[in-house]
Amino acid sequence: MSAEWIWIDTLVRGGHTLRSVRLRNETGMVAEEQLGVPACEGDLVLGTVFPAFGNAHSHVFHRLLRGRTHADGGTFWSWREKMYALAGSLTPPAFESIAAASFTEMVASGWGAVGEFHYVHHRVDGAPYPDHDMELALARAAATAGIRLTLLDTCYLTGSIGKGLAPEQLRFGDGGAARWLERWFRLRERFADEYPELVLGAAIHSVRAVPATAIAEIARALPAEVPLHIHLSEQVAENEQSLAAYGRTPTAVLAEAGALSGRLSVVHATHLSDGDIVLLGEAGVHAVFCPTTEADLGDGLGPASELFAAGARLAVGSDQNAVLDPLLELRGLEAGERLRSQTRGRFSPEQLLDIGTRVGYSSLGLQAPGLIGGLCDLVEVDAASVRTAGSLPEQLLLTGTASDVIRTIVAGRVVYERSRDSARLSKAAVDLARFAADPAAMAEENS
Amino acid sequence: MSAEWIWIDTLVRGGHTLRSVRLRNETGMVAEEQLGVPACEGDLVLGTVFPAFGNAHSHVFHRLLRGRTHADGGTFWSWREKMYALAGSLTPPAFESIAAASFTEMVASGWGAVGEFHYVHHRVDGAPYPDHDMELALARAAATAGIRLTLLDTCYLTGSIGKGLAPEQLRFGDGGAARWLERWFRLRERFADEYPELVLGAAIHSVRAVPATAIAEIARALPAEVPLHIHLSEQVAENEQSLAAYGRTPTAVLAEAGALSGRLSVVHATHLSDGDIVLLGEAGVHAVFCPTTEADLGDGLGPASELFAAGARLAVGSDQNAVLDPLLELRGLEAGERLRSQTRGRFSPEQLLDIGTRVGYSSLGLQAPGLIGGLCDLVEVDAASVRTAGSLPEQLLLTGTASDVIRTIVAGRVVYERSRDSARLSKAAVDLARFAADPAAMAEENS
Repeated sequence: MSAEWIWIDTLVRGGHTLRSVRLRNETGMVAEEQLGVPACEGDLVLGTVFPAFGNAHSHVFHRLLRGRTHADGGTFWSWREKMYALAGSLTPPAFESIAAASFTEMVASGWGAVGEFHYVHHRVDGAPYPDHDMELALARAAATAGIRLTLLDTCYLTGSIGKGLAPEQLRFGDGGAARWLERWFRLRERFADEYPELVLGAAIHSVRAVPATAIAEIARALPAEVPLHIHLSEQVAENEQSLAAYGRTPTAVLAEAGALSGRLSVVHATHLSDGDIVLLGEAGVHAVFCPTTEADLGDGLGPASELFAAGARLAVGSDQNAVLDPLLELRGLEAGERLRSQTRGRFSPEQLLDIGTRVGYSSLGLQAPGLIGGLCDLVEVDAASVRTAGSLPEQLLLTGTASDVIRTIVAGRVVYERSRDSARLSKAAVDLARFAADPAAMAEENS
Repeated sequence: MSAEWIWIDTLVRGGHTLRSVRLRNETGMVAEEQLGVPACEGDLVLGTVFPAFGNAHSHVFHRLLRGRTHADGGTFWSWREKMYALAGSLTPPAFESIAAASFTEMVASGWGAVGEFHYVHHRVDGAPYPDHDMELALARAAATAGIRLTLLDTCYLTGSIGKGLAPEQLRFGDGGAARWLERWFRLRERFADEYPELVLGAAIHSVRAVPATAIAEIARALPAEVPLHIHLSEQVAENEQSLAAYGRTPTAVLAEAGALSGRLSVVHATHLSDGDIVLLGEAGVHAVFCPTTEADLGDGLGPASELFAAGARLAVGSDQNAVLDPLLELRGLEAGERLRSQTRGRFSPEQLLDIGTRVGYSSLGLQAPGLIGGLCDLVEVDAASVRTAGSLPEQLLLTGTASDVIRTIVAGRVVYERSRDSARLSKAAVDLARFAADPAAMAEENS
């Protein structure tokens, strides 16, 4: 299934546009590289190629809300009620089907890896499933789709600061940091044998949903190499609640709890103070922007260039999966910056590519894709479509869309090929449409 | 070539989702409509359909800059220098090829009509071509592509307020409003015979490029039914120049010149005062937002909802054609509003559809598409693609992209069909790539 040698006509990587490149894939890594050479017989021959994109933030089941929440205005908070209703309908088999279909859409869009920020752990009443059923559903779905999964198992303890979980949040909770940690370490053992390729990461839902003392406990207890993610200051109301309860911003709460470090990814980071930006930059955190979601939910435009200048490492994610398109996320990031500043080229095409690929993978605890010594994860794009024709190769990520993805390669294996996989994409679409139209039917599927 | 009867499974129109609709096409108009009926033999059978989208603002040759201007930052003004260099290379045959290819991309994206804001009238030194060569090139290109064209022939007299044309602007100018009007009326006669379907509209480039007295002269002299367009307050610098020269905003200059009326379309309208919004709303002008361009060029987010509330009629356009996708323009309009307001659903899906279809057509002097008594212009979209699966039909315009367009129908004729036209699209892409890579070669083509 996986090629030993891959020949690439035009490889856009690290600020260079390289011609006639041959990469040797060895156990999913790029072991050797030749420049300016012809293809050999048996090579997998590709045209214009980027390293694969890393989707640093996903809630996979939100995909079912796509195109179903725009009728009656509202805010992030009213949208969240619809999302909770959907979360209440999920069963392990339905969750696996939805995730497999959505992950398939992701590989078809050029994402080679995904960080699934996962909090639907338990039964609706909060009682545990017998054997990590929801987490195993995700692991199987990723294997089905061929995407690289970092499962960000999420600690979720309170409805808001100082308040218990609401009934619709019960299935997210573990009852305390210690009990969440216990489950996390059990899950790690469970995965080690069966899914050695899967990265088990961790997440703290937010300062709304995890008390500061529990944040500190988790930051101390998790092994240092484990990627840790958190939603940060997506909404002004979160900042207000944090200031009221702790007398400090959410970022300052994280700093105080010892959670700010290079292994941390803060998601959204929309409403920050100048002091927050300094703290996040000095810690060298990953800041994961989700431009299509932040526009859809009316979150606002976060201070991307300020965070970047301060030393934070920017990545992007698809979040609610209303859009699954790494090019549109990157274009949205740059568009937001241009609109805020009324100047162009806030991030260069080279920087945007780095944000979308290497840094996204880094946020997920993964080595860089597409380089010697890194992961053999690549995306081939159509440089001669009606959208992309005439673009310079290094600017294609500002002109194409996910429909221009020809092949996605993960660990040297072609996990998506446009000309081969149309039936597979149609099946994914049918599965998604069925569950979206009738979420209640999911509860009836045997769990 | 054109069907007499068209049967539609799901027609999304005017706030309703209608099932099993049969439309009778008579000389390009919808002459009769049946609801809840089966298809008959010989009907053109369609799935999910919207009225066709109206592209209320295009500079077709800017398409060649797509994916070639992002390397070195800059602003709107530095981008404009690249655009002028390109404008200087155009010859009538090259212009026709570029326009035919770009218009083909437009029909493939679901645009049924386009307003071409056209100012490259003359030879590089300003000397006229023998017979409206550039304008006829556009007319032929539109006929080749099958798109409905409103040619907005543009008056362009000064480099900035009170300054002569720069050398690179000479080919845009006619030397005075009276001479421009003379050419406009001659052009009208020329087109009347040969291109009776084409709408000849007019444009004033901007208050930067046309003196207030000339604006008044044009507003008076043009027949009342002729659509008139103008770039308005795209950049803060334009407002500053207008205030310095006239002591009033560009909008107030238009008001004073008697140019504000329902036949006027103001393009961009990004940087407006509260008083400007009142004036534009009371006049019932069309306000043409170009969200993908306004983001790309760092123009800023204009006051769309304020204009709408004041009485202006919103439409969208693709402007520089860095993106050709009516769904992404509409989504961009709504996204900008959500980001400004931090609430969702600023425009309902029904309002967005109206903006994209009926009002776009109205801005171009065209009757509404897709209704009885209106133009038989329709777009069929794929409601079961991996992007659109699960969406409610009336929310598809927030989830699909131009790649989901299956067919575009203009005047009852299928001018684009995805499964049929891939060779045609490839040819358009090849033409565009060739000219984009080597604009100088255009000058060598025989004019």
